[in-house]
Amino acid sequence: MADSPNCDLKSLSPLQLFERVTEQGEKVRALKAGKAPKDEIDAAVRMLLSLKLSYKTTTGQDYQAGLPPRDLVLINNGTTKEEDEDFVDPWTVQTSNAKGVDYDKLIVRFGSSKIDTDLINRIERAIGQKPHRFLRRGIFFSHRDMDQILDAYENKKSFYLYTGRGPSSQAMHVGHLIPFIFTKWLQEVFDVPLVIQLTDDEKYLWKDLTTEKAYEYARENAKDIIACGFDINKTFIFSDLDYLGTSTGFYKNIVKVQKHVTFNQVKGIFGFTDSDCIGKISFPAIQAAPSFSSSFPQIFNGKENIQCLIPCAIDQDPYFRMTRDVAPRIGQPKPALLHSVFFPALQGAQTKMSASDPNSSIFLTDTPKQIKTKINKHAFSGGRDTIEEHRKYGGNCDVDVSFMYLTFFLEDDDRLEQLKQAYTSGELLTGELKKVLIETLQPLIAAHQERRKQVTDEMVKQFMTPRKLAFEF
Amino acid sequence: MADSPNCDLKSLSPLQLFERVTEQGEKVRALKAGKAPKDEIDAAVRMLLSLKLSYKTTTGQDYQAGLPPRDLVLINNGTTKEEDEDFVDPWTVQTSNAKGVDYDKLIVRFGSSKIDTDLINRIERAIGQKPHRFLRRGIFFSHRDMDQILDAYENKKSFYLYTGRGPSSQAMHVGHLIPFIFTKWLQEVFDVPLVIQLTDDEKYLWKDLTTEKAYEYARENAKDIIACGFDINKTFIFSDLDYLGTSTGFYKNIVKVQKHVTFNQVKGIFGFTDSDCIGKISFPAIQAAPSFSSSFPQIFNGKENIQCLIPCAIDQDPYFRMTRDVAPRIGQPKPALLHSVFFPALQGAQTKMSASDPNSSIFLTDTPKQIKTKINKHAFSGGRDTIEEHRKYGGNCDVDVSFMYLTFFLEDDDRLEQLKQAYTSGELLTGELKKVLIETLQPLIAAHQERRKQVTDEMVKQFMTPRKLAFEF
Repeated sequence: MADSPNCDLKSLSPLQLFERVTEQGEKVRALKAGKAPKDEIDAAVRMLLSLKLSYKTTTGQDYQAGLPPRDLVLINNGTTKEEDEDFVDPWTVQTSNAKGVDYDKLIVRFGSSKIDTDLINRIERAIGQKPHRFLRRGIFFSHRDMDQILDAYENKKSFYLYTGRGPSSQAMHVGHLIPFIFTKWLQEVFDVPLVIQLTDDEKYLWKDLTTEKAYEYARENAKDIIACGFDINKTFIFSDLDYLGTSTGFYKNIVKVQKHVTFNQVKGIFGFTDSDCIGKISFPAIQAAPSFSSSFPQIFNGKENIQCLIPCAIDQDPYFRMTRDVAPRIGQPKPALLHSVFFPALQGAQTKMSASDPNSSIFLTDTPKQIKTKINKHAFSGGRDTIEEHRKYGGNCDVDVSFMYLTFFLEDDDRLEQLKQAYTSGELLTGELKKVLIETLQPLIAAHQERRKQVTDEMVKQFMTPRKLAFEF
Repeated sequence: MADSPNCDLKSLSPLQLFERVTEQGEKVRALKAGKAPKDEIDAAVRMLLSLKLSYKTTTGQDYQAGLPPRDLVLINNGTTKEEDEDFVDPWTVQTSNAKGVDYDKLIVRFGSSKIDTDLINRIERAIGQKPHRFLRRGIFFSHRDMDQILDAYENKKSFYLYTGRGPSSQAMHVGHLIPFIFTKWLQEVFDVPLVIQLTDDEKYLWKDLTTEKAYEYARENAKDIIACGFDINKTFIFSDLDYLGTSTGFYKNIVKVQKHVTFNQVKGIFGFTDSDCIGKISFPAIQAAPSFSSSFPQIFNGKENIQCLIPCAIDQDPYFRMTRDVAPRIGQPKPALLHSVFFPALQGAQTKMSASDPNSSIFLTDTPKQIKTKINKHAFSGGRDTIEEHRKYGGNCDVDVSFMYLTFFLEDDDRLEQLKQAYTSGELLTGELKKVLIETLQPLIAAHQERRKQVTDEMVKQFMTPRKLAFEF
């Protein structure tokens, strides 16, 4: 039975299986080239076929030389049916469902954990405050190792927060604020340091931009982020293009991650090809490295063991699955994660918004009039075609974008519930629901604009200067 | 004739041809999958076969999907015969010839230019001094754009020197000094700034080393380099692990190079595979970036257009061919190069020396006694088996390692010529030739050791501190 490859194949990952098939293929070729005895070649070929079968059973795909498996995990029925599934990676979010991506399936596929009532209650006990509406309403819906963060916190051990943004243009929309609004709340209730990465190098690599332009966007975006109200004594914002050249710890962690991730792995996780530039191929290490406190020696006094918590949209999870895989191999703690759903486009929840389409969302620079017009004109409605039908059958909150936006921005739970019931029953018309959203967003955005005006270049410079924060390590 | 692919294929590089074949293969598959008309498919298949034939004619290799051509250029007879050829890349130097690698063929293969008498005379006129023995004796034998450097120098335009070392261990041998001895001479005669890169990150990625150990080796190696006598006011030595985190210009150039080089290209140039870590795959950009003066804003005042001249062993050329390919696309001048032959191992010129085999060369830490023993015991002799035969037929300087070492280290041309004639005629015995080498090397190495003792940690720190040098830009 020495030839049977099935004994321990079930425990192998698709990538490991892929590599076993590749190796065995090479062995067969070597035996043939070396004119080995026929029975030896036959045994090796049988082994190869058996390995290929295991590969197909596990991945639902035929083995193709040079093409490692995409990072898809089986759901329910034991086969991957990509055409029926939502597709989510850091650059693409696709679903055919008007309600948006099926997040429960995504949790299974990504192997993360649901943020359930128990966890929310535990957070409430730990911080002694009502949890943020994003937690109460399932907007942050998935996590990795949040219980470890709470264990540590309850034992008076500190941690730090890490989030980020890819500065692809000056224009930020309300959806871009979600991780920052939530991160600000986390920072306040847990009172911990926060680092915010602006991946201007990523945008330079992926877009038709100069490094100067990408850096300028990073600085402009920093103003909108600062306008969310972060505490300058507890927050460090950095551009990669800038900080990599001013930190003694960041590059060392990058190169450590880069040593422990192969091209096969990033091909599987991110879908890179041989025609991609080597900058893209090595970039995931640059998004990984801020998960390790030694990337910020000025903040953590060079300490390597401070736990990191990353609030981010779920499409960023592939970077951090990779990071968590590498962490123990370079002697670092795995970062914990809190994942949010995607913020829907005005036109509906099928896709992520695009900063390049001004009508796909409400921008942070929009005037009250623009906000009103956009919502009235573009917000996809779950209402009926006529007032009569609407009164009779009611609207559908599950697909109504105005209602979805209200779940993000309307603080009052009771009011939101009343709106839901009234809209569903047909009592509340689409125009009336839109009016509530307009009246909710207009003052929020006006206040943001007011705060942003007060963000000076000097403040940006201070936030972006590597320095000690108001914590001892 | 629209279907004929031969019209302009001759002007394509092997990699471009490879990509055309790959594209056409995809087109054929798409047509078949889409059940296109038979004649359309047939035409596409004919085109594919014709492209594959062109690929084979150009590269001498069969097209293999996913396996781009290694960076081999045709020699003379229009076919590549790897088995007959020397193999040279940054990690492997192989030849079956006791005289060493055939450098004339290497010039043709790499597409560089021979350093001929005209160029040596021009250098002599420019500097008003006798050229270094390494030039007089063909030890630096090949170049790229050295005439441009001389044009610029004659027009009072400055340039800078860049060389480096991979610090894989503390132990450096006399062969490692060759580029530094020559670079020191160049610095003196041209009076220009010099940057020396210690690729401790490369050694961390390729070897079983920690970052701390690699950095320690870098600092130890820096002491031996400083002991060559470099002027502290004109020389900047840097470790990648250190300098990347302290320079505002270095990372920006790295990411620019990384954007303009694909995995296919580094696969072709360096032979990387899909199982290599992403750190190795992106490393070539880190060796490329010091070729651009904007990587050293503190030295060049941020100026981008200062020409660079790189003295190095020819095995490093693949990095700089890549760099020269990228330079114009990122608006930077191409670096010029001066290439040296390899320093032979004591056992003979078939291989490059290994720092891990203490008997393969003379180390900079060897005692006079060790030097004597090693040369007497291990230096491959071109002499005859018996004294009688030697007297009768003479020795062979082309394969005699003691003689080769003397061409590197004995300054006196007349003396070297006398030794050659005496050894070839049989007048001089192997033991006598070895004695000359021992008496040449012992004082050289003793002097080096003396100078190295005087290199303090403080001096190393100064050399490795980014700073303005004694030049205005």
